[in-house]
Amino acid sequence: MNVVVLGGDGFCGWPTALHLSARGDDVTIVDNFSRRAIDVELGVESLTPIRPIEERIAAWTESASRKIDLIEFDLAHDYERMVDLLRDLRPDAVVHFAEQRAAPYSMRSSAAKRYTVDNNVSGTHNLLCAIVESGVDAAVVHLGTMGVYGYGWSGSAPIPEGYLSVKVPTADGDIEREILHPANPGSIYHMTKTLDQLLFSFYAKNDGVRITDLHQGIVWGTETPQTILDPRLINRFDYDGDYGTVLNRFIMQAALGHPLTVHGTGGQTRAFIHIRDTVRCVGLALDHPPQTGDRPSVFNQVTETHQVRELAELVARLTGAEIAYLPNPRKEAAENDLDVTRDRFLALGLEPTTLSDGLLEETYEIGRKFADRADPSKIIARSVWSKGMETAPDLMD
Amino acid sequence: MNVVVLGGDGFCGWPTALHLSARGDDVTIVDNFSRRAIDVELGVESLTPIRPIEERIAAWTESASRKIDLIEFDLAHDYERMVDLLRDLRPDAVVHFAEQRAAPYSMRSSAAKRYTVDNNVSGTHNLLCAIVESGVDAAVVHLGTMGVYGYGWSGSAPIPEGYLSVKVPTADGDIEREILHPANPGSIYHMTKTLDQLLFSFYAKNDGVRITDLHQGIVWGTETPQTILDPRLINRFDYDGDYGTVLNRFIMQAALGHPLTVHGTGGQTRAFIHIRDTVRCVGLALDHPPQTGDRPSVFNQVTETHQVRELAELVARLTGAEIAYLPNPRKEAAENDLDVTRDRFLALGLEPTTLSDGLLEETYEIGRKFADRADPSKIIARSVWSKGMETAPDLMD
Repeated sequence: MNVVVLGGDGFCGWPTALHLSARGDDVTIVDNFSRRAIDVELGVESLTPIRPIEERIAAWTESASRKIDLIEFDLAHDYERMVDLLRDLRPDAVVHFAEQRAAPYSMRSSAAKRYTVDNNVSGTHNLLCAIVESGVDAAVVHLGTMGVYGYGWSGSAPIPEGYLSVKVPTADGDIEREILHPANPGSIYHMTKTLDQLLFSFYAKNDGVRITDLHQGIVWGTETPQTILDPRLINRFDYDGDYGTVLNRFIMQAALGHPLTVHGTGGQTRAFIHIRDTVRCVGLALDHPPQTGDRPSVFNQVTETHQVRELAELVARLTGAEIAYLPNPRKEAAENDLDVTRDRFLALGLEPTTLSDGLLEETYEIGRKFADRADPSKIIARSVWSKGMETAPDLMD
Repeated sequence: MNVVVLGGDGFCGWPTALHLSARGDDVTIVDNFSRRAIDVELGVESLTPIRPIEERIAAWTESASRKIDLIEFDLAHDYERMVDLLRDLRPDAVVHFAEQRAAPYSMRSSAAKRYTVDNNVSGTHNLLCAIVESGVDAAVVHLGTMGVYGYGWSGSAPIPEGYLSVKVPTADGDIEREILHPANPGSIYHMTKTLDQLLFSFYAKNDGVRITDLHQGIVWGTETPQTILDPRLINRFDYDGDYGTVLNRFIMQAALGHPLTVHGTGGQTRAFIHIRDTVRCVGLALDHPPQTGDRPSVFNQVTETHQVRELAELVARLTGAEIAYLPNPRKEAAENDLDVTRDRFLALGLEPTTLSDGLLEETYEIGRKFADRADPSKIIARSVWSKGMETAPDLMD
C-alpha cells in the first residue's frame, strides 16, 4: 500500500511510519517539524535523544533495508503542495497526524489557542479539499481523541464508537436516530478534533471521501518493535508540563525521583493505549477503510481505562515514588466513571497490550537511562484553563 | 449601548448598524470590505448602487444627526487589532456578521472553500479569544443559519431553537439530555456555522463568554426604515448566481423580464425573514443576552416558511413572469417539509413582516428601478456541489 504519513516525525507519526514500512507499505512522511519547533519555544527537549529526521530515515534503511521518503511542507498553509503530492504519488491512503496535540499547550496563551485552531482546522480542511481537487481517491485515517466525547455525559451507557443511538420525541412517537456523539471537548485542542469531525462528515457526504477517525486514548510507552532496532530510531518521550501525558509523566517522574504529580483528587478516569498498539491500530484501520459514500468510520482506539490516582499508586508501588496532590490547572470533573466501547479493533484482531504486560518496567528503564536529560523546572504543569488558576511550585531543583 | 458591528458594510450588517444607531446605540463598524472585493472577483455589482462606506456614514450623519465610527481591519487575520479595539472601546456587545455568507460561493472552487473555512472559523475564534484576552465582558450576537439543522432530519418534530431534547438508552432506562441539534450542513458555508457553534459552546463553558447565535432563514427585501432616508444609504441587492438568494432572485428576475429560475422541482421548503425584521431581531438579541456561565442562547430568526415553487408561482402571478425549472447545482433533498420553532423572538415582541405585507411589491419596484444595472450573464447559478454537475445555459442575452 502506498501511504502518506502527515506528521510522520512526531510521537505517534514516527513509529507509525516505521510500522507501516516494516509491514511492506511504501511510506512517504510529510512534516514541517512544528513539534521540534515547539520544543524550542518551550525550552525543552524530548527525554529521549531523538535524531534529526534525515538520520532517522537513514538508520531505518540501514536496519530494515526499507526506504521512507520525506517531503517537508506545512499542510495548514502549503495547500498546493498537498494537491501536487496527491497527484504525483497517487497514494492509497493518507494518515493524518499533522495536528497540534497537547491540551495544555492549546490553553497556554492566546497565541497557542489561535495556532492550535488554525493549524488543526486548516490542516484537516486542506487535506480534504486537496483530495477532492486532485481526484485521487485516497482513504484518510485521522487521529482523533476520546476527548471529543467528554466524560460522564451519557450516564451508565458506554461511550459508543462515534455514533450514538438516541430517541427524538415527536407528536407521532419517538423516532430513532443515530447521531455523531454530542461534542463535549475539555480544551481548545479537544475542540479542534470536534471541528474535524464535522469537516469529515461533510466531505464524506458531499464528496464521497473515505474517512476513518480514530478516537485515541492517552498514549503511554515510547518504543515499538521498530524503534528499538537502532538507537537512532528512538521515539520521543515528552516529560514537560504541556506535552507530558499522565502515565508517561508518572513513570518519568519516578525515574527522576520526582513526586508523581496528580492534579486534583486524581479521580479522573481516562482511557489508555500503548504506543505499540497505536501503530497496529493505524495499520488495521488502513486495511479496513469505509466505502465511498459511507459516513466516517469511527474507532475508539483504547485498550483499557484507569483512574489517575490508581495509576499513581501503581507506579508508586513499583518504584517507591511519592505522590503529590497538586491544584488542577484544568477545568474538568474531579471524579468520573468511564465505560468505553472498544469492540471494533478487537473484531479486527487487535491483541491489546496492557499495563500488566511488563512494559511499565521497560518505560521506567528508558526514563532512568535518560533521566539526566530532564530539566526539573519544566515538569510542573503551568498552562491553566483560565487566567488566575493556581498551579504548584517546582517540587525539585 | 456601545456596540461594535463586525461586517457592518454588508447586506445585513449595514442596515443593522443603522437600526442600532437610530435607536440610540453608539455604533462602531468594523469591516475589511471583503464583500465588495468578492463582487470585483465575480465581475458583478449590487443591483442597487451602494455607495462607499465613508459616504454612507456621512449620509447617515446628515440624515439622522447620528455618528457611526468606522475601523478597517480583517478580523480573521488582524487579531491584535480586535484585542486593542475591545480594550479601547470596551463595548457592551459585538455583533458578528464578518463571515463569508453565500453557500454557492463556498462551493465554487477549492480557493473559495478554503477562504470560507479560514475566514469564518478564524474570524469567530479570534473574536472569542480576544474577548477572553482583553477581559472585556462584551456580549456576542452572531448571525448563524437555519442550515445548521438540515431539512427533514427530525421527522414530524419541529426544529427547536438550537437545543434538542433526546432520550439516550442506558441499562438503567432512558436518560434525557438536551443537546445542540445535530449538525446537518448542506454546504461548506453552512458547515462553518456548525463549527462556530462548537467554538461558542466551548468559550461559553470554559470562559463564561455570553453568546447569542441567531439561526437566520433566507433574507428577502433590501430596504429598511433607515436605508430609505437617503439614496446614499441604500442597501445591497445581490442578484448573481452565487450571492442572489431565492426570493430576491425571483423578484429581480421578474423585474428584468428573466424567467424565474427554480432549481430542481422547487419542492424545497425554506424559512424566510425580511431584512427589516433581521435588524429588529438583532436589537432584541442585544437587549436580552444570556448570563455569564449560560450555554449559548440560540434563536431561530425566521418569520415564515415557504416552498420554493410556491414562491415562484406567487411572484409569477404578481408580475407575469415565466418559471424555468433548471438542473439543481446543489446536493439537497428535492422535496422537504419544514416546521420551525420560532417562539423566542415572538415572546420578546417581534411583530413579523410577512410576504403579504406589500413588501414584495416594494422590492419589485427597486428591482425595476435598477434593472438596467444587471448583467444577464451573471444570473444563472453555476457553482456546483461536485465537479461535473449540470447547470443551465444563460436564459437571457
